Amino acid sequence: MPHNVYHLYMEIPLGTLIAIGGAEDKGTEAEPRFEQKQFLNFFESGILKRIISEMKGVDSYIEVITTASVIPEEVGENYIKAFGKLGCHNIGLIHIKTRDDAQNSEYEERVKKADGVMFTGGNQLRLTMILGGTDFLKIIMDRYQNDNFVVAGTSAGAMAMSNTMIYQGSSQGALLKGEVKITTGIGFIRDVIFDSHFVTRGRFGRLAQAVASNPACIGIGLGEDTGVVIKNGNEMEAIGSGLTLIFDGHQIRHSNIADLEEGEPISIENLIVHVMAKGNLYYLKERKFYSNQLAVIS
Amino acid sequence: MPHNVYHLYMEIPLGTLIAIGGAEDKGTEAEPRFEQKQFLNFFESGILKRIISEMKGVDSYIEVITTASVIPEEVGENYIKAFGKLGCHNIGLIHIKTRDDAQNSEYEERVKKADGVMFTGGNQLRLTMILGGTDFLKIIMDRYQNDNFVVAGTSAGAMAMSNTMIYQGSSQGALLKGEVKITTGIGFIRDVIFDSHFVTRGRFGRLAQAVASNPACIGIGLGEDTGVVIKNGNEMEAIGSGLTLIFDGHQIRHSNIADLEEGEPISIENLIVHVMAKGNLYYLKERKFYSNQLAVIS
Repeated sequence: MPHNVYHLYMEIPLGTLIAIGGAEDKGTEAEPRFEQKQFLNFFESGILKRIISEMKGVDSYIEVITTASVIPEEVGENYIKAFGKLGCHNIGLIHIKTRDDAQNSEYEERVKKADGVMFTGGNQLRLTMILGGTDFLKIIMDRYQNDNFVVAGTSAGAMAMSNTMIYQGSSQGALLKGEVKITTGIGFIRDVIFDSHFVTRGRFGRLAQAVASNPACIGIGLGEDTGVVIKNGNEMEAIGSGLTLIFDGHQIRHSNIADLEEGEPISIENLIVHVMAKGNLYYLKERKFYSNQLAVIS
Repeated sequence: MPHNVYHLYMEIPLGTLIAIGGAEDKGTEAEPRFEQKQFLNFFESGILKRIISEMKGVDSYIEVITTASVIPEEVGENYIKAFGKLGCHNIGLIHIKTRDDAQNSEYEERVKKADGVMFTGGNQLRLTMILGGTDFLKIIMDRYQNDNFVVAGTSAGAMAMSNTMIYQGSSQGALLKGEVKITTGIGFIRDVIFDSHFVTRGRFGRLAQAVASNPACIGIGLGEDTGVVIKNGNEMEAIGSGLTLIFDGHQIRHSNIADLEEGEPISIENLIVHVMAKGNLYYLKERKFYSNQLAVIS
């Protein structure tokens, strides 16, 4: 692990992380298909509004990074329209499609000046494969660590945020050993695992398996049109119209996961689950749930 | 509640309850479409074998009750074939389609002589609406209570077994208040809530809501080709190739469910979840998980 990445973990970031569960069928199984109708969900629930209110409102300068998608132009234009409807006039699109593209110093300069970035949906492995280890990503990480800078991501863009990233795993096979594939994510935050499209795609099993295989990680299952705002790398607030599930594996008493052959069903005793609605808080390091925003850690 | 039903709850049943999560797309949303290919799952995982081994093996006399289905002849014939492949030669079909049909004393005589019954999938509300309060059902309940009698049910046939029965609730809206519809089931067992097709249909939310609204009930989420064998109304063993999820709400610390308007998202703090694989045991009354069958309650 490069020194600067390790260093990042040691300090409380000044930036804000916003992870969104996705709003339409655009995860890793299928490519994104943004449609205006589906986008309206974002407005209704105020997720995009919340993103800009964490920056400078409608005057915010946001760079939309479309790397996860294989149809970046289409996806990007829809973000321009969606933010535009809210009155935003300073939205840039960064279409990094290859590691070569990522070397373009123009992009580096732009993220140095932006108030925040938005990682679109698509395939989270594209994000790590194309951006992992680049100066472009280091600049974003430095800004997240040291500035009042917002890193937002939806679907694949959310799943890649942690250092532990699920990149594959069907709903049906999700509780068979080895069916959930995990690798190293971008690492804006550690000791959590994000999953997206959580409720509608039946992803309980894959996040449970990911948490059971290392209970140090808190599982965060993001519903569609639903997200979390994380401040100080710890204080997580649920936003949007749906639900966020928290899986805390610290009290797991038994799991057969280490003893199984690949493909055998796993068992887990005593997984703690919290269901968060809009406004609920969860403090990741303390592993504490608060039902409202007036919560103060005592 | 009629006296005899109440009485049933007071004593430990001598019979065995086998609840199966369904093996194909035949829940309440769609009508059953049994296909030979899908049926093979039952053989592979041994669920049907287990059902007959809980009776008298291949000589067992089993009555298949197709009431939940609106295509009972097709469904019934597939069970004849499926049990037939195992060598069973004494399988009857009871096609009760209306409350009038249920008055047929021939059916009453047949279930008095059978070693067990199998409720097929379909719509669980058909089971309660057509069979609820009939002498036919009382005979089955008496036999379950007082004899070494097996009551098996798959999908809708499993969901109707408890006194608390989910009969509707989409995966997408399952964590919005009021989206999960519950009514009184047949009542072979109480203080549990069965859900079926659990993993593939993303039904985490609806079972969580059902449990949160009354944490006295243990939620049992049955995967496909997966089931539980319950003895003494308490000792539950996981069978089949998939997973069974147990939701224990007794340690829920906060839920907003009583305060919400209809359609608002619910929140739940501290739901205990167990993931059971084949061979794991869970004792319902003690709410204890055992990872193997050698478990003895001390």
